[in-house]
Amino acid sequence: MTYCLGIKTHEGFVMASDCRTNAGFDQVNVCRKMHTFVTPGERVFIVLSSGSLSLSQSVISQARIDYDLGLGLAAAQTPYEGARVLGDHIRRVADKDRVYLERDGYKFNVNLLLGAQIRGGPMELYMIYPQGNPLQSSEEAPFLQIGECKYGRPILDRAIKYGTTTNDEAARIALISIDSTMRSNITVGPPIDLIVYEKDSFEIRKYRRFSHKDPDFLGIQNQWEQSLRKAAQELPIIGFDGGKPPDG
Amino acid sequence: MTYCLGIKTHEGFVMASDCRTNAGFDQVNVCRKMHTFVTPGERVFIVLSSGSLSLSQSVISQARIDYDLGLGLAAAQTPYEGARVLGDHIRRVADKDRVYLERDGYKFNVNLLLGAQIRGGPMELYMIYPQGNPLQSSEEAPFLQIGECKYGRPILDRAIKYGTTTNDEAARIALISIDSTMRSNITVGPPIDLIVYEKDSFEIRKYRRFSHKDPDFLGIQNQWEQSLRKAAQELPIIGFDGGKPPDG
Repeated sequence: MTYCLGIKTHEGFVMASDCRTNAGFDQVNVCRKMHTFVTPGERVFIVLSSGSLSLSQSVISQARIDYDLGLGLAAAQTPYEGARVLGDHIRRVADKDRVYLERDGYKFNVNLLLGAQIRGGPMELYMIYPQGNPLQSSEEAPFLQIGECKYGRPILDRAIKYGTTTNDEAARIALISIDSTMRSNITVGPPIDLIVYEKDSFEIRKYRRFSHKDPDFLGIQNQWEQSLRKAAQELPIIGFDGGKPPDG
Repeated sequence: MTYCLGIKTHEGFVMASDCRTNAGFDQVNVCRKMHTFVTPGERVFIVLSSGSLSLSQSVISQARIDYDLGLGLAAAQTPYEGARVLGDHIRRVADKDRVYLERDGYKFNVNLLLGAQIRGGPMELYMIYPQGNPLQSSEEAPFLQIGECKYGRPILDRAIKYGTTTNDEAARIALISIDSTMRSNITVGPPIDLIVYEKDSFEIRKYRRFSHKDPDFLGIQNQWEQSLRKAAQELPIIGFDGGKPPDG
């Protein structure tokens, strides 16, 4: 399993991913799910992947080959075109592998998140489905998730507001969202890769990998847990008015 | 969909359930998923149900008929025996309906939570699977959930500690857990039924139903949201050490 998320803010975007991959319970590995395609000063694409590792590797390999030839993401005029390029790569991998997977009962399963900006244009955040079609984030829903999404969602629903949430805040919230997921699902695990992209910078200035022993990460985990407990304790006491229970 | 949870504390237990039921997107109703079987001063069984409403209704109907005859839950000597009684009711409904459901592609799907105490014995919390077998909560995992469990789990993982968490705290945490779920999944919805059972009371003294407009519930929601945002803002700022991003 995997958990990746992207958060778009008025200052840029935050992309974060876990690094655990597993085939069954006894084949667990560390694997990077964050990939970058950057021409400094001109274009930045940050791609996160979930689903079958074999499939996402093929997609990223194809994208890298094209990029290095000045094609694909290197030639896209807009983030939307970039999302379409990645969708085409997914479809090409599907053409190669899908039939063989399905005849053995496996699903063709690969999802991508893309945060991108090209000089002169807007900064955009997309999810790309296994069918290759892209979905863009909106101001009402300024974050997108792939993989094991549910455990990490409540904090996003409550704490992210487009126009108010800063890049720094979004980065901390992303870490909390991943930590909540890791805590409840052992197939999502450290290290965590985090990029904070600053709008109109056209390069990646803030990248960090957090191991499970990273003191800053442990500090955030502990402080968060204490704050949550305190917040729960400070909630108003619930009164009971002597209402009769059902069937009582 | 449904979300129900039970939390066992050293002071008693808390049982809470939502009230939304849906068959597809255009047939949405309010339906109680909390049922009580109480002989004051002697025995208390609180049952929450998820899964197909038709099936859980049949299970509860059977349990009620037997109870009123002094059989089943009314004759159980221990909470474990009560859990087994409910499992037998599930199996009887399966004998009636399972084949007919499966031949049309439906799953036989009913899960129960049971919080129970019988005079002279311990207070216990169980989940009962669609196969009829019971699972008991433990001190390490003092809560059990059925239905749409994931959104509401992080707060439980962080805030519930057996031996420390009081009944009052558990009740507020249960409301927050349900609220987090309702916010992310529209098939879980108000009103919310809440019972706080006090150990060795052998009756239900604290029951309340919260509508979506209940001022106390709205107060808890608002305060929680503000506390979470504040907690996120107060987390330590993440430093970036100029590490090179992947592929960068």
